[in-house]
Amino acid sequence: MGDLVDRLSEVVGAAQVLTGEAISPDYSHDESLTATPGFPMAVVRPRRAAEVAALLRIADERAVPVVARGSGTGLSGAAVPHGEGIVVSFERMDSIVEVDTANHVAVVEPGVRLEQLDAALEPHGLVYPVFPGELSAALGGNVSTNAGGMRAIKYGVTRHHVLGLEAALVSGQLIRTGGKYVKTSTGYDLTQLIVGSEGTLALVTEATLRLQPRSTHAATLLAPFRTLAEVTSAVPRIVHAGVGPRILEYIDALTMAAITANVDLDLGIPVEIREAAQAYLVVVLEGNDADRVEEDTANAGILLDSLGAIDVYVLPPSAGAELISAREKAFFVAKAAGADDIIDVVVPRAAIPEYMVKVAAIADEYGALVTGCGHVGDGNIHLTVFQPDKSRRVGLLRAVYQQGMALGGAISAEHGIGTEKLDHFLALEDPAKIDLMRGIKAVFDPNGILNPGKLLG
Amino acid sequence: MGDLVDRLSEVVGAAQVLTGEAISPDYSHDESLTATPGFPMAVVRPRRAAEVAALLRIADERAVPVVARGSGTGLSGAAVPHGEGIVVSFERMDSIVEVDTANHVAVVEPGVRLEQLDAALEPHGLVYPVFPGELSAALGGNVSTNAGGMRAIKYGVTRHHVLGLEAALVSGQLIRTGGKYVKTSTGYDLTQLIVGSEGTLALVTEATLRLQPRSTHAATLLAPFRTLAEVTSAVPRIVHAGVGPRILEYIDALTMAAITANVDLDLGIPVEIREAAQAYLVVVLEGNDADRVEEDTANAGILLDSLGAIDVYVLPPSAGAELISAREKAFFVAKAAGADDIIDVVVPRAAIPEYMVKVAAIADEYGALVTGCGHVGDGNIHLTVFQPDKSRRVGLLRAVYQQGMALGGAISAEHGIGTEKLDHFLALEDPAKIDLMRGIKAVFDPNGILNPGKLLG
Repeated sequence: MGDLVDRLSEVVGAAQVLTGEAISPDYSHDESLTATPGFPMAVVRPRRAAEVAALLRIADERAVPVVARGSGTGLSGAAVPHGEGIVVSFERMDSIVEVDTANHVAVVEPGVRLEQLDAALEPHGLVYPVFPGELSAALGGNVSTNAGGMRAIKYGVTRHHVLGLEAALVSGQLIRTGGKYVKTSTGYDLTQLIVGSEGTLALVTEATLRLQPRSTHAATLLAPFRTLAEVTSAVPRIVHAGVGPRILEYIDALTMAAITANVDLDLGIPVEIREAAQAYLVVVLEGNDADRVEEDTANAGILLDSLGAIDVYVLPPSAGAELISAREKAFFVAKAAGADDIIDVVVPRAAIPEYMVKVAAIADEYGALVTGCGHVGDGNIHLTVFQPDKSRRVGLLRAVYQQGMALGGAISAEHGIGTEKLDHFLALEDPAKIDLMRGIKAVFDPNGILNPGKLLG
Repeated sequence: MGDLVDRLSEVVGAAQVLTGEAISPDYSHDESLTATPGFPMAVVRPRRAAEVAALLRIADERAVPVVARGSGTGLSGAAVPHGEGIVVSFERMDSIVEVDTANHVAVVEPGVRLEQLDAALEPHGLVYPVFPGELSAALGGNVSTNAGGMRAIKYGVTRHHVLGLEAALVSGQLIRTGGKYVKTSTGYDLTQLIVGSEGTLALVTEATLRLQPRSTHAATLLAPFRTLAEVTSAVPRIVHAGVGPRILEYIDALTMAAITANVDLDLGIPVEIREAAQAYLVVVLEGNDADRVEEDTANAGILLDSLGAIDVYVLPPSAGAELISAREKAFFVAKAAGADDIIDVVVPRAAIPEYMVKVAAIADEYGALVTGCGHVGDGNIHLTVFQPDKSRRVGLLRAVYQQGMALGGAISAEHGIGTEKLDHFLALEDPAKIDLMRGIKAVFDPNGILNPGKLLG
């Protein structure tokens, strides 16, 4: 241990190797509701990619587990330290290396936070369009979990915006994958393999991100519906209309009441409509021309009306932004309300009503309260589970995941597997695929030092 | 051999196992200008995924090479048969399994051709927006090479539209990856690993493809510029204007003369402008509203004018379509003109002028004529090389690839490595990445039966 600390200190300087009492409890957890915190032997804070590579080589020689850490906003336990390992914290690698306005890319270190990047891009009229909700999240963590968010209906998820990576291998080598281009057919796509691998294959030391023009105008429509099935039926119609919605969210009545109360937001919806509404559809349109956005909004309103909305509200810009912001805080509202777990299943979006009927039956069976909202355009459902008894909750989760997969979905849309969904993943996923993944893992990390016990066990 | 044929025949029926004289020369090649044709021991034509899996198991047990074949329109030699192996031809697996208008996906067998899929989607007002130029290409081949094309500036490439796969492993197992959703963070992305792997990891037996609303209106602008640098400088400005161009192509003066002459297309450009123009920029805009497309076109024209275009032509719809179609035939024009090779390098789009200066110097050095056009919005340059001497041509290619990589680019944007770029790829790529790729290959295909000698040697 003393020798290990010496070796690590040679790389980053003694001040950047924390041990014992110097390790703040902040490093011991992520935002998962259920993961057990842990303290590592050491927290190491490199400043450069070459240091990360050197740290990995030292760890690999001694078979010391390594857990990468961005800003710790993950929801699956993937960044929780290993008790006999080290944490490589990217907090000091937080430079925006380049905003390249000719190629429309940004090059960032993994510790750069979403809000930091957004502030840097705004003056250029550009945007990194992945908004997973928590703007203090670091890009390195976003890349490792393939973070999603509300704008995926228009822009896709992190994966679709990572054009290239620099990554450190356990051998101490740095590789560069991809680059400032969208098209390539030059060997296996190592970029896409590393994205979403939860720190189990390599440590990302730099990411090249695709940017988009930043829209200057936006409008938010809110449509209460009597049933969730009407909401999901409306989705393909809205997409097909070609207005390119930035956001298509559903929020169930309970969740809507909770998230608006949390921020004292009065949307001015009459009580009789609120009582009739089982689910709300939120549609955000955007564009660079005020007249067109207004025209699109009017047309979308007519369309929503024809699709059975009880009423359609075009929210004033401030209320629209507040509603989206309130929705982004749904997790914290659930947490404050004593939620026992959250779920981020994805199913084909047309299967959502059928899925929710099954979820209601499962909730009944396990005596749980389950509320929800979700990225309905993407089939990504966020459920909040209230069931304090662990074994019943685990049974409920297993059933909920199993039903999602039976409908052609997957366990996690955007939070990842980490530790908290690991048993379910290993139990429900095709063993042939698990074998392939473990084989790939062994190619990158033969000694199994990278985030052991996460994602693949 | 006799025993092998018997075993294969048990799986697909004797009529679907071709040997000797029964193997048409059509199976012996792809469209590469340089690859040496070859005849396999047998061509096998399965009808179902389970048959493909069974064929792989038989081949793996006997260490018989397997080459997958779609419609043979590849340009890198990847589908050329192995003399001691079998070809699995997907020509009979050509069903569109489903056009799902609620989830906006199509599920296709690998032998489905692009033109066939497009015809099936058109009545639904949907489009699979990857147009690599050759509409007789099969989707299985498109997936295996990660085919690109002219619309990538707006829609990305094949990779961005493949949501899921069914694939046969050498073990004889079938796996399903991904599904009818865009978001997932559930283990390593095997879908994206198999896309672009040129038949070296698994055989794709079904693909789930993301669809987009089909635009009802389009407009084509043609702008001659004095220099290529002005063309590339214009690109980010056009993208930034937010009109979402479907196509941003550059065509050099020589190529423009050749491709328009090939189809007798008179664009009505005065001779003095043609003489002054070193490069043309083609901009195609699209939308669902005629007025908006017209307004966007007018604005784009003003922008192009301000960016130094010698003139701006808004082509009549028929001429616009003919020009794009003529451009798609550029490869065949080059072939008919006796071109010795073609190149599909990608560089960051802003680096194109610098790159083309280097390419001109290399062409001089090796006594070659090099003409070009390309997907300038994506940095993807198609060069046609006239230099019959093989060793000089190989030297030229090596230098052209090396320079592309030095500018942060890659050897192939959309044609793949196959056999024809293999030596260059292995010589120029980072050995650490090649080692990872070979390790991954060994996980999927321990006996090395899948397309041996391609992509990774």
